[in-house]
Amino acid sequence: MAVYTLIDDDSLADFLACYELGQLLSLKGIAEGVENSNYLVITERGRYILTLYEKRVDPADLPFFLGLMEHLAQRGVRCPTPVHGSDGAALRQLCGRPAALIEFLDGVSPRRWQAAQCAELGRALARLHLAGADFEMRRANALSLDGWHRVFTACRHHADSVCPGLEAELASELEALAAAWPADLPSGVIHADLFPDNVFFRGAELSGIIDFYFACNDLLAYDLAICLNAWCFEPDGAFNITKARQLFAGYQQIRPIGADELAALPLLARGAACRFLMTRLFDWRHQVEGALVKPKDPLEYLEKLRFHRHAAGPGDYGLG
Amino acid sequence: MAVYTLIDDDSLADFLACYELGQLLSLKGIAEGVENSNYLVITERGRYILTLYEKRVDPADLPFFLGLMEHLAQRGVRCPTPVHGSDGAALRQLCGRPAALIEFLDGVSPRRWQAAQCAELGRALARLHLAGADFEMRRANALSLDGWHRVFTACRHHADSVCPGLEAELASELEALAAAWPADLPSGVIHADLFPDNVFFRGAELSGIIDFYFACNDLLAYDLAICLNAWCFEPDGAFNITKARQLFAGYQQIRPIGADELAALPLLARGAACRFLMTRLFDWRHQVEGALVKPKDPLEYLEKLRFHRHAAGPGDYGLG
Repeated sequence: MAVYTLIDDDSLADFLACYELGQLLSLKGIAEGVENSNYLVITERGRYILTLYEKRVDPADLPFFLGLMEHLAQRGVRCPTPVHGSDGAALRQLCGRPAALIEFLDGVSPRRWQAAQCAELGRALARLHLAGADFEMRRANALSLDGWHRVFTACRHHADSVCPGLEAELASELEALAAAWPADLPSGVIHADLFPDNVFFRGAELSGIIDFYFACNDLLAYDLAICLNAWCFEPDGAFNITKARQLFAGYQQIRPIGADELAALPLLARGAACRFLMTRLFDWRHQVEGALVKPKDPLEYLEKLRFHRHAAGPGDYGLG
Repeated sequence: MAVYTLIDDDSLADFLACYELGQLLSLKGIAEGVENSNYLVITERGRYILTLYEKRVDPADLPFFLGLMEHLAQRGVRCPTPVHGSDGAALRQLCGRPAALIEFLDGVSPRRWQAAQCAELGRALARLHLAGADFEMRRANALSLDGWHRVFTACRHHADSVCPGLEAELASELEALAAAWPADLPSGVIHADLFPDNVFFRGAELSGIIDFYFACNDLLAYDLAICLNAWCFEPDGAFNITKARQLFAGYQQIRPIGADELAALPLLARGAACRFLMTRLFDWRHQVEGALVKPKDPLEYLEKLRFHRHAAGPGDYGLG
């Protein structure tokens, strides 16, 4: 949630001249996305999001992200689509940064959500997984096993200052995950960051999924595990079985979940909890200049990690 | 430029139910205004700015600000107008704060501006002054002579850490201003914060003035002095005589500037420079949690203050 780059008039005029959008009517920095600068652009032709990719995004990954959004949208997934300029390009430079103009998507992210919305989420996630099956580009998950070790190295030294004993707990957790992580589950394109902030609803209906900047190729069930963490715990830390059942039931309506995927759920959910615990731990210490809100509390994910470690199987989630 | 208050779904639904705007299509925190939380709200009926007034705004002043915007808009000044709910009220509570929904205004704030835009600004400012003449409510300028002394008391102790000798320079400046400040110039409703951030253009045409949350009753020529400081110096500190001439010429087209007002300009400009120097000095030290950008550099206004102190009369601005 930030606006890191301020855009000067001339650069903006040059940028917009690459498109055929009529006169610029409004430009407002918006609080959306943690990693990049985002502007709402209104022109005579419509509404757009202008994203300037800041230094935490690798420019080499941008063709994957933008191409994926376009690929998914063409297959009926409700996600923003990049606008192509008169020269055909969707990605160009603005104020020294890679930048893209993207169609504006109606909808509101829920701050509190009901079980019915988890079912909608499940259906949308399964559709995304199916639609991604024939996407030709590939991107490894930079935040899977290897990546976790790199993040751990960067954040371990202040782990105990956030929670005594956390460094040792994380070290042993990572060891356990590395030893048991499944390799043979169905894989494909995953969103990898499908938090409520990144999902829009219009009333009860899911109207869009945004922020594909962690999307990658990985285990499909890992995406479900990320959603389980992000959508099925209450603010007081309680696991909500109804929401989990709705999430999985919605998903199953579109894509059947294999018995092997379900059996791996506790482990995948531990991995997902570990990933967000560590990146939050890192962000907690390295607060970004210009960021709009405080980093999220890492300890929320420590509680989730411990919950999953004590789960014997999918039955402990009310599933299977 | 901040979003201090996050709005939960239920509170927002209750709030919007007071208006007849159709379904909510989008809600985005936007980077506009330093003091308050601002959201862009899109509904089936249109686009709005939702402002939650944070603690730096005195709720007792809100009827003045909102009433003034409505008064000016009715007289043809291009400024946002508050939306009234089905109950007739334009001001209500949201998430524990006073809040108002305001019509969205097209236009873009210039980051760099031309002399022709200063002429547009002058005309718009004069129209604002004329349109405010029959506004019945009154609000004293909390940031005039008395207010400056209060701000000075709050910021003087770290003045020298920003620039050695600044505390003494400000003390003597405030004394000089108090001794010579004019009392008998034409007065009325002034905007009092008409920086480029608060002025929208569509191409060459001024399309709107926003952010009336410093508006008050004071000397009309003091508003011109604020604009002279904000619009007629270049980023390198150089005074731009062409822009000043255009600003005043535009203003004169709509409302003649008296010889007494012009003669007082160096003093009024010193006062205006002093006011922004001190509030920036204060903000520099008391950075607001959640603010989106760094406070502005106080020293920019120290340079302007010194420039005006050496001006013998309006001729030094290329005027008169």
